Amino acid sequence: MPSLPHVVSRLRPPDFDAGSVWLVGAGPGDPGLLTLHALHALSEADVVLHDALVSPEILALAAGARLQPVGKRAGGARTHQLRINQRLIGLARQGLRVLRLKGGDPLVFGRGGEEALALAAAGIPFRIVPGVSAAIGGTASAGIPLTHRMLARSVVCATGHDLRGEAPDVTRFAGADTLVFYMGLRHAGALAEQLIEAGRAPDDGVAFVANATMSSQSVTLGTLDTAASVAATLSPDDPTLIVVGPVVALRDMLRPLQQTAPLTMLPEPMTAAGARR
Amino acid sequence: MPSLPHVVSRLRPPDFDAGSVWLVGAGPGDPGLLTLHALHALSEADVVLHDALVSPEILALAAGARLQPVGKRAGGARTHQLRINQRLIGLARQGLRVLRLKGGDPLVFGRGGEEALALAAAGIPFRIVPGVSAAIGGTASAGIPLTHRMLARSVVCATGHDLRGEAPDVTRFAGADTLVFYMGLRHAGALAEQLIEAGRAPDDGVAFVANATMSSQSVTLGTLDTAASVAATLSPDDPTLIVVGPVVALRDMLRPLQQTAPLTMLPEPMTAAGARR
Repeated sequence: MPSLPHVVSRLRPPDFDAGSVWLVGAGPGDPGLLTLHALHALSEADVVLHDALVSPEILALAAGARLQPVGKRAGGARTHQLRINQRLIGLARQGLRVLRLKGGDPLVFGRGGEEALALAAAGIPFRIVPGVSAAIGGTASAGIPLTHRMLARSVVCATGHDLRGEAPDVTRFAGADTLVFYMGLRHAGALAEQLIEAGRAPDDGVAFVANATMSSQSVTLGTLDTAASVAATLSPDDPTLIVVGPVVALRDMLRPLQQTAPLTMLPEPMTAAGARR
Repeated sequence: MPSLPHVVSRLRPPDFDAGSVWLVGAGPGDPGLLTLHALHALSEADVVLHDALVSPEILALAAGARLQPVGKRAGGARTHQLRINQRLIGLARQGLRVLRLKGGDPLVFGRGGEEALALAAAGIPFRIVPGVSAAIGGTASAGIPLTHRMLARSVVCATGHDLRGEAPDVTRFAGADTLVFYMGLRHAGALAEQLIEAGRAPDDGVAFVANATMSSQSVTLGTLDTAASVAATLSPDDPTLIVVGPVVALRDMLRPLQQTAPLTMLPEPMTAAGARR
């Protein structure tokens, strides 16, 4: 049986050029959901600008790089998007290999599009490395299939707040079979109310998935008409997905036999002889 | 700078138990978008049941396993879903490590939910390994951000045909900012017509992304009112995503500086001394 390092020795990742920026999705949390491109970028980068949501286990893989936390949860203060763009451009112009690492996927509510546009305008070559988005990876590990041939043939992913921080208008897509809201915990009641008014059943299933794919993952179930009261019992600081639709009911059937252990890591590299360096 | 195999030597993936089934997403095509869990599963599996859409480069990583093609494009005939379920259960009961490998993500139009339910009902332990879905990976490599803070805060992914093979009703979610249809090329005109009737602008951008992330990827642009005629010029045999929304216009700004080379592989493993085995 070939071991993982043995298999990997055959891989030839594309060059991470000096003076370029890679906008990379780190997936929802479990390091096993990193892509090979992401792992390559971590091992080659000179500097890593990362969101606070990227787990320490994943950052530990960037042994050779300088780490710069940016984003909402970094030390309390939020780094303004324009300053992040400027920093990416400045570091690339110094000839560094710049890795911009985001939770989930960089283009699904990750502002990767804004950063890519800024880099393109500045003439900096860049690569977008998609990742397993939180909606997809988080619901899978919670035992909730986003689609199911008979139950769900359309899925909408949406932000749970608008540009002013208010509950967005969700009636425009309320009839999708499955809905996933990012960062909508604060407005769960208002969102559920809109969906009922738009014609969804009050007993439509709702799942709140906090800390998706991490060992601290927790899933709380409810329905549209109980969503507000259930949300009030949850920690507002945990990143939480809200899933709405009939597929939520499949969880109870899947969970008893579903395995979800994450990938773990040795704290230090082993030499070929198996001794710690 | 640590090399990829060196970094990988620190990873401890979860056990792939004998007698269990892993339902794994292989991503949209580029082997660099495989997750570490997927690579681990490929190197450990005794048998791999794979969709025809999984690329030969990815299957080459399963050196130690028996390969069994299933699914719509395998040799022309489609393997019925119930027979796939039965085969997964039978192979697991033989005590094998069974890898069910799908293009994209297993739960986003991949019927992984049906297979997981069948395994759970049969008492077979299983794991769902999410992957980069075609919609997300394919649009990223085409230079189209699915979301953008100012332009798009909701994305719907939907099948482009219903259970009878007809164009589905898409008016229920027609107001989402971005829409992505899987396998909808045949009904592109009917889908566009519905969206215009539901209130979308006839000049709303449309992108057809064929063979996403592969070296054969091609992107063709149009608008809702030209969608039918553009679709008629495309090969119906290529797997093709249809993207609708204002974000399509960002492609022209991003493409000139976007790098997209896929990960490639050496045909055979090298020994530690660098000589071919």
